[in-house]
Amino acid sequence: MQLRITKGHGTGNDFVLFTDPDAAVDLTDERVRWLADRHVGVGADGVIRAARASSIEGTESTTAVWFMDYRNADGSVSEMCGNGVRVFAKYLLDEQLVAPDADGAIEIGTRAGTKRVVIGTDETGADAFTVSMGDFTIGDDLALVSAVGLDVARPALAVDVGNPHLVVTLAEESELSRLQLAVAPQTDPEPVSGANIEFTVPGDIDDETGEITMRVHERGVGETLSCGTGAVAAAMAMRHWANDAGKLDTAPNTWLVRVPGGTLVVTADGTSATLSGPAELVFSADVTLD
Amino acid sequence: MQLRITKGHGTGNDFVLFTDPDAAVDLTDERVRWLADRHVGVGADGVIRAARASSIEGTESTTAVWFMDYRNADGSVSEMCGNGVRVFAKYLLDEQLVAPDADGAIEIGTRAGTKRVVIGTDETGADAFTVSMGDFTIGDDLALVSAVGLDVARPALAVDVGNPHLVVTLAEESELSRLQLAVAPQTDPEPVSGANIEFTVPGDIDDETGEITMRVHERGVGETLSCGTGAVAAAMAMRHWANDAGKLDTAPNTWLVRVPGGTLVVTADGTSATLSGPAELVFSADVTLD
Repeated sequence: MQLRITKGHGTGNDFVLFTDPDAAVDLTDERVRWLADRHVGVGADGVIRAARASSIEGTESTTAVWFMDYRNADGSVSEMCGNGVRVFAKYLLDEQLVAPDADGAIEIGTRAGTKRVVIGTDETGADAFTVSMGDFTIGDDLALVSAVGLDVARPALAVDVGNPHLVVTLAEESELSRLQLAVAPQTDPEPVSGANIEFTVPGDIDDETGEITMRVHERGVGETLSCGTGAVAAAMAMRHWANDAGKLDTAPNTWLVRVPGGTLVVTADGTSATLSGPAELVFSADVTLD
Repeated sequence: MQLRITKGHGTGNDFVLFTDPDAAVDLTDERVRWLADRHVGVGADGVIRAARASSIEGTESTTAVWFMDYRNADGSVSEMCGNGVRVFAKYLLDEQLVAPDADGAIEIGTRAGTKRVVIGTDETGADAFTVSMGDFTIGDDLALVSAVGLDVARPALAVDVGNPHLVVTLAEESELSRLQLAVAPQTDPEPVSGANIEFTVPGDIDDETGEITMRVHERGVGETLSCGTGAVAAAMAMRHWANDAGKLDTAPNTWLVRVPGGTLVVTADGTSATLSGPAELVFSADVTLD
């Protein structure tokens, strides 16, 4: 069958998107894997189907018209993806499937509930898409993380953002750039279901804003150019440490997180956080699915 | 500027192709890198411009109408690419820029001279594209190659196919699959300009045909799904060993080389070899170059 697809990315976290209002396409694991295959297919970290929420089971309660049917590159279903939902918002707007409400926001149905994406501008005047990432939880225990290029194992803070993260802080950017994340880092104790691991270097921190440089190893994937939940975990860990260390009376709520694919902004709001950043559509093409 | 591109691959070695008869597009390193970028651009191992040979300097002597202007993913120029020229032939045919001659062949200008690509069928009836890869040279000395997942360093045979290769033979496929080629193998002594390294396991060998399973680490790139010159080097090294070992009166000239992205056929003809295999075009799209 022929399928019209669009390739897009948010800070280098990339997706193949297509519109299928009635969820009529038989989206087998094999087809998803081909769409995500960077050599013989189109290539992406994930595949997103835009389906009407009314055509997806279990979404009766949502007020959103469109549902983000997200698949990982291996074909498995995922509840949410912070960069994916921002690129999906850009796609729905560009395809004129939705229009922003009076507050400049759109609603999107996801397996993690209805998400509101606010369309604004960043400090450079470019479009920025902001989404609530829900609650985060800072863990009690430290794990030890070792990696190729790291002299000794380092303590890591566990942060849960709906999925598990371990955040390690390094002293200098040279230390960060020496890491070889093509080899999966080892953790002790090993998290039961694995964890995404963020290596971070703190930058300037004042009362208003903090800065972080980060590289991430996503469980089952490898190093990626960006990870939305990872940026939230890194920012909230750094905020936790900044508070603990007593450097500031109150650590800032807004954090610029520089990932290899660009810059994301994480803002804490009580026990939850928002993720903000760019979203771009690169090309559209007709492909043939077996 | 807007550019119409096509994505294609040969056994997983993939390319972005476009037609620019007068070589009018300013193909800067930055534009090539964007086209080859798998996350924020289109994504490929290389970028190929189809230009009329008459529009390229230094090609006055070629009888080919079309020239393969090949760029590596980093923007640098390359003389030839065995999988690239086969995919380029498929592209010229599909775009109806050339028609096969009476022998079912087309001519293509490259920086390594005029190449003749013969369009035939493989044993499954699918289109196969065969190209002469020129002369190969078996080296005199053995180097030692070590890699993550390999218990001890192994001897490697140097084979030159216009570019330098080191071919290592392993006993079993389980040994091949344990290799972690995300980390570059080490060689002793280190080749002056680096080398592509092929790890091979011999399969069935009879008077007519030999079989090889192979993984390859390309210098400056990492592990790839396929490498045309690497397949030639591996096959000609195995033929050399088969002759030396006295297993056969005369080692076969035809070798099936199974790479992670598919199967290539290498045929020796004296001191030169041909490479044969599939070529596929996956999609076309309009992209915007900065």
